[in-house]
Amino acid sequence: MSEATANIGVVGLAVMGSNLARNLASREGNTVAIFNRSHDKTEHLVAEHPEAEFVPTFSYEEFAASLTVPRTAIIMVKAGAGTDAVIEELLKVFEPGDIIVDGGNALFTDTIRREKAVRETGVNFVGMGVSGGEEGALLGPSLMPGGSDESWVTLGPILRSIAAVAEGEPCVTHVGHDGAGHFVKMVHNGIEYADMQVIAEAYDLIRRATGKTPAEIADIFAEWNTGDLESYLIEITAEVLRQVDADTDKPLVDIIVDQAGAKGTGGWTAQTAIDLGVPASGIAEAVFARSLSSHPEQRATTGVLPGPAEEFTAFDADAFVEQVRLALYASKIVAYSQGFDIIRAGAAHYGWTIDLGTVAAIWRGGCIIRARFLNRITEAYAESADLPVLMTAPFFREALAASQDAWRAIVATAAASGIPSPVFSSSLAYYDGLRAGRLPAALIQGQRDFFGAHTYKRVDKDGTFHTLWSGDRSEVEAVDTH
Amino acid sequence: MSEATANIGVVGLAVMGSNLARNLASREGNTVAIFNRSHDKTEHLVAEHPEAEFVPTFSYEEFAASLTVPRTAIIMVKAGAGTDAVIEELLKVFEPGDIIVDGGNALFTDTIRREKAVRETGVNFVGMGVSGGEEGALLGPSLMPGGSDESWVTLGPILRSIAAVAEGEPCVTHVGHDGAGHFVKMVHNGIEYADMQVIAEAYDLIRRATGKTPAEIADIFAEWNTGDLESYLIEITAEVLRQVDADTDKPLVDIIVDQAGAKGTGGWTAQTAIDLGVPASGIAEAVFARSLSSHPEQRATTGVLPGPAEEFTAFDADAFVEQVRLALYASKIVAYSQGFDIIRAGAAHYGWTIDLGTVAAIWRGGCIIRARFLNRITEAYAESADLPVLMTAPFFREALAASQDAWRAIVATAAASGIPSPVFSSSLAYYDGLRAGRLPAALIQGQRDFFGAHTYKRVDKDGTFHTLWSGDRSEVEAVDTH
Repeated sequence: MSEATANIGVVGLAVMGSNLARNLASREGNTVAIFNRSHDKTEHLVAEHPEAEFVPTFSYEEFAASLTVPRTAIIMVKAGAGTDAVIEELLKVFEPGDIIVDGGNALFTDTIRREKAVRETGVNFVGMGVSGGEEGALLGPSLMPGGSDESWVTLGPILRSIAAVAEGEPCVTHVGHDGAGHFVKMVHNGIEYADMQVIAEAYDLIRRATGKTPAEIADIFAEWNTGDLESYLIEITAEVLRQVDADTDKPLVDIIVDQAGAKGTGGWTAQTAIDLGVPASGIAEAVFARSLSSHPEQRATTGVLPGPAEEFTAFDADAFVEQVRLALYASKIVAYSQGFDIIRAGAAHYGWTIDLGTVAAIWRGGCIIRARFLNRITEAYAESADLPVLMTAPFFREALAASQDAWRAIVATAAASGIPSPVFSSSLAYYDGLRAGRLPAALIQGQRDFFGAHTYKRVDKDGTFHTLWSGDRSEVEAVDTH
Repeated sequence: MSEATANIGVVGLAVMGSNLARNLASREGNTVAIFNRSHDKTEHLVAEHPEAEFVPTFSYEEFAASLTVPRTAIIMVKAGAGTDAVIEELLKVFEPGDIIVDGGNALFTDTIRREKAVRETGVNFVGMGVSGGEEGALLGPSLMPGGSDESWVTLGPILRSIAAVAEGEPCVTHVGHDGAGHFVKMVHNGIEYADMQVIAEAYDLIRRATGKTPAEIADIFAEWNTGDLESYLIEITAEVLRQVDADTDKPLVDIIVDQAGAKGTGGWTAQTAIDLGVPASGIAEAVFARSLSSHPEQRATTGVLPGPAEEFTAFDADAFVEQVRLALYASKIVAYSQGFDIIRAGAAHYGWTIDLGTVAAIWRGGCIIRARFLNRITEAYAESADLPVLMTAPFFREALAASQDAWRAIVATAAASGIPSPVFSSSLAYYDGLRAGRLPAALIQGQRDFFGAHTYKRVDKDGTFHTLWSGDRSEVEAVDTH
């Protein structure tokens, strides 16, 4: 039985867990205990990385005994039943005041449930979003821990030591209580879906309307990456488009089957937005675009459904590309604005105090949507923490003012020419919906009152009203029981 | 204690329950037992409707004793915990072979859970969608029962006696087992959301682009109701638009607060579609349009966000109106096509045998989306039950071919002129997505492989592949562990 020398432990040594353990061990002041259900992984990791000076353990008792108090363990196993099983084992050997961190991709409602159950034992439970994939885990992820204030006292310095650093700041903050960390990580992924989809739409429009090659479009993305759009996703898009398949000598993007996979978190974000009553159309359309692509049996109807008579060709390719850039930028602003709306609404609903500007700040490094752009979000919330809609902040309003003509032109062109651009067009409809002085929602309320006596409000006085549609069509004041 | 004379009972005598009980009692061969937790409602209903010859009961024991075997009870209480409580009481007094029907708006997963639990007692549990509101319940609803084949033997004749009749056929069928009925009712409501939203968008576009008054637009809808768009919703839209507010002498639609309410089923449909991997963008956008309208604090930013320089005015109002009609028709076809996709996917996932053509047929009467149009859907599935996409059936394909130019023009006009039309534009993007020979989903797969080693498939050979993006950028065959 080892003596208690480790200040942090990791349970689950698949790639993410191993890399996070190595990252922890590489930072001064950390001694890392490790445990895995199959012992050979533990032994392998110790043998491969002697420099880490891991404390290998082979039972939960040994693992707990190796940890200094408060014992702190990060679970890195596949989300779901496995997580519950590990928590159960740890609770047998941990004591009140100890800390269990779930670094998997748990659904935040599961985290809320687990935190509540674990809290009753006196042990702290922290659901933590970890972004940045395998490389991020090793070199510096963006970390989104939830959980109690007490656990943050111990965890804070450890997590700050391993997080990505952006502009001198570690990409970690105590997001909020219980499930707040996993919630914010979920929305991060939802935004990522939208961001990837608008890039895909931009590529498709340019390719189909100008006939440029993937390599030429790679150059365009590389150039875009020097301006407002500078971001990891734009950067790697250029790399992917430039890649030539060795077998065929064709652009790799033409060899890859055009069916996009999904691992669920984008869908969770859209579903949660629906629950919270937040219009997150950009994220939902991005999710649907992936699912549409993944129905080959339906897409086999290509050619059956009629399209426009003529293929569109951009008259001035450079001008068209610039319009697409602006449309992409505007749509991206909308997607982020909707994403931060979900976080605001989630915080209000679940009783979390979440600093939206800090969330943007910790996404600047380590994670997939890292971008210069996020500084503008931090600044917007610094200036006005209660901003009702992110995109109304001066910087974004001006960006939208400068791009909206091009955005409108691109959506119109896409519609006329039969090039699908679901997120470009959906974002614009959302934007125009928010701008509208009056919406036809009034007609919908009238219809609902007609067929279901759902009642309506009036613009000129308080109360709830119903028209006797099947009677003399007079209006009565109603008690809204619906 | 009454002797067993009633062949059917109703529990829960609020408006829907009372009306359904009266409907049952009015049909030859039915004797209806009634029960309500607060007894005055029972007494009141008996007193008000002596013609119904109800068998009033004041305890669950008395209720059960009044029913002939197999005892058959329809629960009409608010969905949720109340339903579970009534089921528990009924199980105390019912026997194996008896039938409990839940006619509330339950979420289908709750129905699946309840059916499984009740089945263990030997009692049949049937979740039944009831459409048509209060008037439908009284005069003839569209009924969507799930549950066992055994229960349908008894229920079938009773339900056929009270359902709406469309073209000589009662609007009821045994939809499928356990939760199938509530599932189909949920999708009905989702389609209803989309249908209402496309009508609202058509109204808004015509009003803003032509300056026509609500009364003039009422005439347009009334005329549309004589053609392809003939439907209850188009009909009542004309009625609502024609209504003048007595207080102000203004069109009522201008007096109603433009914030649309929602009762959840539209959102459930979109959430379920996401779970099933079905792109249901029209329904989701309709849900989001309502939630957008209901955020006054965000809409207060109207005027802050810039719009297009000039208001658009239709050059030829009549031609514009006709284009809008065609855009509405095309978007509606897409919404229904997506809705039937959800049903098909749900049936496959939950193991239900659902006849899609019959579902369309039982929606022709009693329910909110009743329309001539539904016959075309029945015909399409009669011709080809395995149709992968409803809108590829000859009738719809031709309708889309005839309307797509107008549809494209309207979406382009809406984008250029700043009039939000989220479902018109989203449906078009979906349509063009399905048509596309290649989608930029291939680029998304490339990005996912770059940042997360998620792997991709190749168009030219089997297997799963990964490019060593951080290495020498060669391709390796991968075991897909993601």
